[in-house]
Amino acid sequence: MNAETLIAMVSIFTAGLTMGLGAIGPALGEGRAVAQALLAIAQQPDEANTITRTLFVGLAMVESTAIYCFVISMILLFANPYWDHFLSTGP
Amino acid sequence: MNAETLIAMVSIFTAGLTMGLGAIGPALGEGRAVAQALLAIAQQPDEANTITRTLFVGLAMVESTAIYCFVISMILLFANPYWDHFLSTGP
Amino acid sequence: MNAETLIAMVSIFTAGLTMGLGAIGPALGEGRAVAQALLAIAQQPDEANTITRTLFVGLAMVESTAIYCFVISMILLFANPYWDHFLSTGP
Amino acid sequence: MNAETLIAMVSIFTAGLTMGLGAIGPALGEGRAVAQALLAIAQQPDEANTITRTLFVGLAMVESTAIYCFVISMILLFANPYWDHFLSTGP
Amino acid sequence: MNAETLIAMVSIFTAGLTMGLGAIGPALGEGRAVAQALLAIAQQPDEANTITRTLFVGLAMVESTAIYCFVISMILLFANPYWDHFLSTGP
Amino acid sequence: MNAETLIAMVSIFTAGLTMGLGAIGPALGEGRAVAQALLAIAQQPDEANTITRTLFVGLAMVESTAIYCFVISMILLFANPYWDHFLSTGP
Amino acid sequence: MNAETLIAMVSIFTAGLTMGLGAIGPALGEGRAVAQALLAIAQQPDEANTITRTLFVGLAMVESTAIYCFVISMILLFANPYWDHFLSTGP
Amino acid sequence: MNAETLIAMVSIFTAGLTMGLGAIGPALGEGRAVAQALLAIAQQPDEANTITRTLFVGLAMVESTAIYCFVISMILLFANPYWDHFLSTGP
Amino acid sequence: MNAETLIAMVSIFTAGLTMGLGAIGPALGEGRAVAQALLAIAQQPDEANTITRTLFVGLAMVESTAIYCFVISMILLFANPYWDHFLSTGP
Amino acid sequence: MNAETLIAMVSIFTAGLTMGLGAIGPALGEGRAVAQALLAIAQQPDEANTITRTLFVGLAMVESTAIYCFVISMILLFANPYWDHFLSTGP
Amino acid sequence: MNAETLIAMVSIFTAGLTMGLGAIGPALGEGRAVAQALLAIAQQPDEANTITRTLFVGLAMVESTAIYCFVISMILLFANPYWDHFLSTGP
Amino acid sequence: MNAETLIAMVSIFTAGLTMGLGAIGPALGEGRAVAQALLAIAQQPDEANTITRTLFVGLAMVESTAIYCFVISMILLFANPYWDHFLSTGP
Amino acid sequence: MNAETLIAMVSIFTAGLTMGLGAIGPALGEGRAVAQALLAIAQQPDEANTITRTLFVGLAMVESTAIYCFVISMILLFANPYWDHFLSTGP
Amino acid sequence: MNAETLIAMVSIFTAGLTMGLGAIGPALGEGRAVAQALLAIAQQPDEANTITRTLFVGLAMVESTAIYCFVISMILLFANPYWDHFLSTGP
Repeated sequence: MNAETLIAMVSIFTAGLTMGLGAIGPALGEGRAVAQALLAIAQQPDEANTITRTLFVGLAMVESTAIYCFVISMILLFANPYWDHFLSTGP
Repeated sequence: MNAETLIAMVSIFTAGLTMGLGAIGPALGEGRAVAQALLAIAQQPDEANTITRTLFVGLAMVESTAIYCFVISMILLFANPYWDHFLSTGP
Repeated sequence: MNAETLIAMVSIFTAGLTMGLGAIGPALGEGRAVAQALLAIAQQPDEANTITRTLFVGLAMVESTAIYCFVISMILLFANPYWDHFLSTGP
Repeated sequence: MNAETLIAMVSIFTAGLTMGLGAIGPALGEGRAVAQALLAIAQQPDEANTITRTLFVGLAMVESTAIYCFVISMILLFANPYWDHFLSTGP
Repeated sequence: MNAETLIAMVSIFTAGLTMGLGAIGPALGEGRAVAQALLAIAQQPDEANTITRTLFVGLAMVESTAIYCFVISMILLFANPYWDHFLSTGP
Repeated sequence: MNAETLIAMVSIFTAGLTMGLGAIGPALGEGRAVAQALLAIAQQPDEANTITRTLFVGLAMVESTAIYCFVISMILLFANPYWDHFLSTGP
Repeated sequence: MNAETLIAMVSIFTAGLTMGLGAIGPALGEGRAVAQALLAIAQQPDEANTITRTLFVGLAMVESTAIYCFVISMILLFANPYWDHFLSTGP
Repeated sequence: MNAETLIAMVSIFTAGLTMGLGAIGPALGEGRAVAQALLAIAQQPDEANTITRTLFVGLAMVESTAIYCFVISMILLFANPYWDHFLSTGP
Repeated sequence: MNAETLIAMVSIFTAGLTMGLGAIGPALGEGRAVAQALLAIAQQPDEANTITRTLFVGLAMVESTAIYCFVISMILLFANPYWDHFLSTGP
Repeated sequence: MNAETLIAMVSIFTAGLTMGLGAIGPALGEGRAVAQALLAIAQQPDEANTITRTLFVGLAMVESTAIYCFVISMILLFANPYWDHFLSTGP
Repeated sequence: MNAETLIAMVSIFTAGLTMGLGAIGPALGEGRAVAQALLAIAQQPDEANTITRTLFVGLAMVESTAIYCFVISMILLFANPYWDHFLSTGP
Repeated sequence: MNAETLIAMVSIFTAGLTMGLGAIGPALGEGRAVAQALLAIAQQPDEANTITRTLFVGLAMVESTAIYCFVISMILLFANPYWDHFLSTGP
Repeated sequence: MNAETLIAMVSIFTAGLTMGLGAIGPALGEGRAVAQALLAIAQQPDEANTITRTLFVGLAMVESTAIYCFVISMILLFANPYWDHFLSTGP
Repeated sequence: MNAETLIAMVSIFTAGLTMGLGAIGPALGEGRAVAQALLAIAQQPDEANTITRTLFVGLAMVESTAIYCFVISMILLFANPYWDHFLSTGP
């Protein structure tokens, strides 16, 4: 049962580390984009619609890198191919 | 009972580390967005509504990366699939 | 009694580390938001109410990431599911 | 008596580390807020009351993250649930 | 079965680390590009179309480095050539 | 006598580390606040009283985080509850 | 079979690390270039063609360093000369 | 005699590390305050007295964190309570 | 066969590390140069030819440091003199 | 003779490390203060006396943190209380 | 044959590390110089010749530090004096 | 002869490390002071004498921290009190 | 033959590390100096001669620190006094 | 012969590390001073003589910290007092 334990430990730790690291960049990037968007609206209120629309498309793009990390964390926790292999071959 | 102990230790440590790392980015990003929002309101008080609404949508987006981390921490503590496996197979 | 000791040690250390790391980001972010709020009030004293209200909603949002960390620290210290498991199954 | 010693060592070290890390962010954030407050007073002396009041509410908010760390340090030193457990079960 | 376990562990850890590191740069870079795009739209609303189109081509380029990381993570998890080799040669 | 020695070593090291880390943030934060206060006085000499009073309240707030660290260092050196326990139970 | 396992482990880890590190620089550099390009278009809409063309040539140049990393990762995973050697000489 | 040696080693190392770390923050903070004070005097020579007085009170405050570190270093070297304990109980 | 394995492992790891580190600097430097080039074209459209030519010569120079790293990575993978020596002398 | 050697080694290493770390902060802080002083003299040559006097008092204050480190290094090398203890009790 | 293997391993790793580290500084420095050169040409197109000539002499100077690193990497790989010694003395 | 070797090794390493660390801060601080001095002379050529005199006193002050490090390195190499002790007591 | 191998390994690694570290500072410093020189020429084309001459003297000075590192690397590789000693005394 | 080898290894490594670290600060500091000197000459060509003279005195001062490091590296390689001791006492 040693192999299973090791795979489980590494999967748990990697799932957390990936999400933990992967939350730093997108959060900072989105915060910057939102901050600038508000400044832009204040400067040019008439373009609020265009600015907001561009902002949301951009935020979705930045968010995508956080979602990649979340996807990999979820795969490691709930659909780990290596874990499935070890389970199916038995101990 | 060794395997259970190891899984528990790694899960506890990862849950804390993920949340600890995952709180840095969103907090800084939101702080920046809020700071700029106040400046924007001061510059263009008439657009306070648009600015506040855009700010809250943006904050929700940034907060989402912190929530991903929180979700993974909670899964590791209360719904850990690996832990359930080891419990169900018995020692 | 070895397993209990290890779980306790990891829980204590993680509780402290999570809170220690999790206090850096929110404190810096809130400090920045408060600093900008004061500048905004000085520029536009008539909007002090709107600014203060937006500031407090924003601070609550930033504080939430610190509170996530505090919650996880408290769970690890006082409602640790793994610890409860090991206590209930006996040594 | 080994388990007690280990718990005590980890608790002491974590108490110090949590407070040490947790003092960096709030101190920097508060320093920034205070610095900006003084600038704001110099620009708009008539609003000194509003600025000072907002500053103190904001400082209290930032200080809260330092206090979370202090609380956890104190819990680890004087009301550690794991330590109480090991003491009550005897060696 | 030792070799398989090691390969699986290293693959899982590397998949997470690659995505975790690889999300920091693109997220920050895209956040900066989006932020500047909004400022540019505010300055020159008549060029919103050109700016948005250039922004999206640029974002796609930046995103590509995140996608390289995602591709490598996916290869390591689901199409790992070394893992296939060890599986096909048997233990 | 091993347990006592370990507790003493960890207490000494943690006391120093906590104070060493805890002196960085407050010193930088206070330096920044003082620096800005002087600039504010130079800009608005008539408000020197208000500025100085706000500065000292703010400094006291920032200093509080350094004092938390100092208190924990002193507790670890002179009123360490774990040390008292091990002394009272004898070796 | 020990040598093969080691080569495989090191190749997998290096492939991921190279791509992970190699994505940080290009993403930041391209983000900066795109951001400045949008500002330049806003300032001088008549030169949008020249600016866009220069931008894309520059982006291709920056992207090249990311591609070097991707190439090396791919070589390590699918055309590793050392791995081929060990396979051809047999265990 | 082993315990005494260990306590002495840790005390010496911690005394140096505390002072070494604790000198970085105050020196930078004081340097900043002094630098700004000179600028303030140059801008408003008539307020030199107020500025100098505020500067010295502020410097004393910043210096206090360095002095906390120095005090702890001195306690560890010349009035270490743990060392006194081990000396009085004999080897 | 031990020596060969070690040489192969070190060569693979170094090839990746060199390229990974070596991609950070050039990508950032080129990104900065391209960004400034676009600003320069926007300011002085009549000099677009001179600016573009100088930019490409400069980019080639910056790229050269990335290419040095790529060359060394390739040498380590495909023309490693130490590996050739060990192969020719036999195990 | 083992204890003496260890104490000597730790004392030597700590003496150097304390001074090495303790020289970074004061040097940077003093450099900043001196730099600003020269700018202030250039702006307000008539106040050169006041500025120079304030500068020297400030420099003495900053230097004091470097001197604390130097004092501790000297104590560790030439008046180490622990070393004296071990010498007087004999091996 | 142990000594040869160790020398080869260290030489390979050092060759890569030297080039990897040595590419960061020159690339950033050259990027900055090129960026400023383009700005200078945009400001003063009539001096494009002088600026370009000075730029290229400067770039050559900066490149020289990268070339020192490349030379040492090449010496370590193809003209390593220690390796030649061990080869000539035989195993 | 073991003790002598250890003391010698630690002394050599500490001497180098102290000087290496201690050269970073003073060099940066002096560079900044000199840079600002030149700017000040360019702004106020009539005060060149006062500026140069203040600069040299300031540089001497900054240099003093580098000299503390150099003194400690020299003491460790040529007048090491611990080394003298071990030599005089014989092996 | 063990001693020779160790000396050779340490010499090779140190030669590379010294050059690798020593290339970062000079390259950045020279890049900055060249960048500012071009700006200075653009501002004051009539002084191009004085500026270029001062630049080259300054670059030579900065380059000197890189050359110190290169000299030490070369000494370690080709004129290592310790290596000569061990060779002359024989194994 | 063990002691000699260890001393030689530590001396070689420390010589390289001291020079490598010690080249970073002076190079950056001198680069900054030279850069500002060129700007100062461009602003005030009539003071080129005073500026250049002050620059060279300043550079010599900054260079002195690099020379301290070089001196210590040279002492460690060619006039190492510990090495001389071990050679004269024989193995």
